[in-house]
Amino acid sequence: MNNKPLILITNDDGIHAKGINELAACLRELGDLVVFAPDGPRSGMSGAITSLFPLTYSLLEEEEGLRVYSCNGTPVDCVKLAVNDVLNRLPDLLVSGINHGGNMSVCVHYSGTLGAAKEGCILGIPSIGISLADYAKEAVFDECCRLGQQLAVRILDEGLPPGTYLNLNVPNLLRVKGMRVCRQAEGRFINEYMRSENADGEPVYWLTGSLHTVSPLHPENDTSALDAGYASLVPCLIDATDYGFMEQLHTLVETNSITTR
Amino acid sequence: MNNKPLILITNDDGIHAKGINELAACLRELGDLVVFAPDGPRSGMSGAITSLFPLTYSLLEEEEGLRVYSCNGTPVDCVKLAVNDVLNRLPDLLVSGINHGGNMSVCVHYSGTLGAAKEGCILGIPSIGISLADYAKEAVFDECCRLGQQLAVRILDEGLPPGTYLNLNVPNLLRVKGMRVCRQAEGRFINEYMRSENADGEPVYWLTGSLHTVSPLHPENDTSALDAGYASLVPCLIDATDYGFMEQLHTLVETNSITTR
Repeated sequence: MNNKPLILITNDDGIHAKGINELAACLRELGDLVVFAPDGPRSGMSGAITSLFPLTYSLLEEEEGLRVYSCNGTPVDCVKLAVNDVLNRLPDLLVSGINHGGNMSVCVHYSGTLGAAKEGCILGIPSIGISLADYAKEAVFDECCRLGQQLAVRILDEGLPPGTYLNLNVPNLLRVKGMRVCRQAEGRFINEYMRSENADGEPVYWLTGSLHTVSPLHPENDTSALDAGYASLVPCLIDATDYGFMEQLHTLVETNSITTR
Repeated sequence: MNNKPLILITNDDGIHAKGINELAACLRELGDLVVFAPDGPRSGMSGAITSLFPLTYSLLEEEEGLRVYSCNGTPVDCVKLAVNDVLNRLPDLLVSGINHGGNMSVCVHYSGTLGAAKEGCILGIPSIGISLADYAKEAVFDECCRLGQQLAVRILDEGLPPGTYLNLNVPNLLRVKGMRVCRQAEGRFINEYMRSENADGEPVYWLTGSLHTVSPLHPENDTSALDAGYASLVPCLIDATDYGFMEQLHTLVETNSITTR
C-alpha cells in the first residue's frame, strides 16, 4: 500500500498498439499504473460485453509501479474484469487510449475506447477517453500525451462529477492551437459499405464510410474544433434520458390511452 | 411502390428468437416489414460495428409485405446494412426486439437491442427498442406486443424528435398496470464474474452479476416503474453532451492553462 494515485489504462486497439504504450509512458510519473487491455484490435466494439465465451487474462509485465495485462475480451470487459478481479481498490482515474483515429461526433457511440471510458464512469471512476485523429500505426502521440497528462493531473486533483466522463480528441498536428470544451457534433456515417466478393463469388460487405456532420461550422462542436486545429474536450453523460421530451411523450402516451385497455 | 409504412425490424437475440417473430407478427398489419437480424445471439453487443471481417446476409423468407433476412453481423451492422443495401428508402419506423430480458437503467449502454434502436435514430429513423423482463426462450410476449403495437401506431402517426429514440421495457406480467414515462435509473452491475476453470485448469471468467440501482424507489425511473408493475418508456438522446458541466469544465481547462505552453 502507498499513497500514490492508482490509474487504470485500457484501449480498443489492443495491448501492443503504440498509442497505449505511449500513454502509459507519459502517465507513469503520476501514479501506480495498471494497464489492462485487449490482446488484439477491438475497434468499434462500443460498450459491448462478452457473455457467450469465458474471459481470460494474463500478466505480461510487472515492475515497480506498473503491471501490464492482456485479456481476450472487449474494452468494457477489460475495465470490468480489472476492477472485479485484479485491483484491490477502485482506481483514482481511468484513461482509455490513446486511440489511433479520432472519436468525435457520433463515434462516441461506436468506439471501444469511449465504451471503456463510459464503463469506468458507470463504475464510479473518473474516466477519460483520448483519441488522436490519425489512424497510422506509427502515429505521433507527443501532443496527445502532453494534453492527456495535463488533463490527468487536473482530474486526479479535482475529480469529475459522478455520471460524467470526458472525450478528448486531438488533431494530428505537431502543435495544437489549444483545447476547446465542446458539444458532440451532430452527424452520421455515409457510404458505409464497400461491396466485394468472397472466394465463392458471393457478395460480402466491408465496413467503410465517412463521417458526415450537420452544421460542422458551429464553433462549439468537436469536429469543427478539430478542423480549426484545436483539441476538443466533450463532457459526456451516462444518463441518456431526454428530459426535454419527457412531458410531450407523457401527453402522447396518455392521450392515446396506451396505458389502459 | 405503395403508400404503406415501411418498418424495419431487428434484434440482438437473433433471427430465430421467439421475441422478434412475435414482434413481426403483431406489426404485420401496420405496414410492409423488412426483418433484418443477426443469424444468432448477439446479446450485450451494444453499439458495436464489425470491421475486422466482411458482412454477409441472405434472404430467408419473402411474401407479400414481408421480407426476412439473416446477417452475420451485430445489431448495428444489421441496421446499417439493411439501410445501405436492402431498403430502397429510409424506413418510417425501426423496432428492435422484442428482447428476451429487460434493458432498464444502464442496460441501455450494453444492450444490442438498444444499440440497434440508437443506430436507427442516428440514421434519421424514428426508432424504438422493446424488451420483456423475462429471459426465458419461451417467454410470453402478448402484453409486450399489445403495448409495442400501440406505440408503433402512434410513432408512425406523429414521429419522434430527431436525435431521440425510445426504450420500452415491459414487466413479465399478464397485465401491466399501465405505461410510465420515466428517466433512466442510475445503477451499475455488481458481482459481475463467476470464476471457473478451463480444461487445462486455468482460471476463466463468465459474465454474470446483478443490476444494482441507486435510489430505486424514485417514482419516475424505469426500474421502479417495472417493480411497481408498469411498463417503462424512457426517451433517450443520441447527444451525450453534459451541457450542465460544460462551463465548469471550461474554467478547469483554462485556469490550468492546458491550452498554452
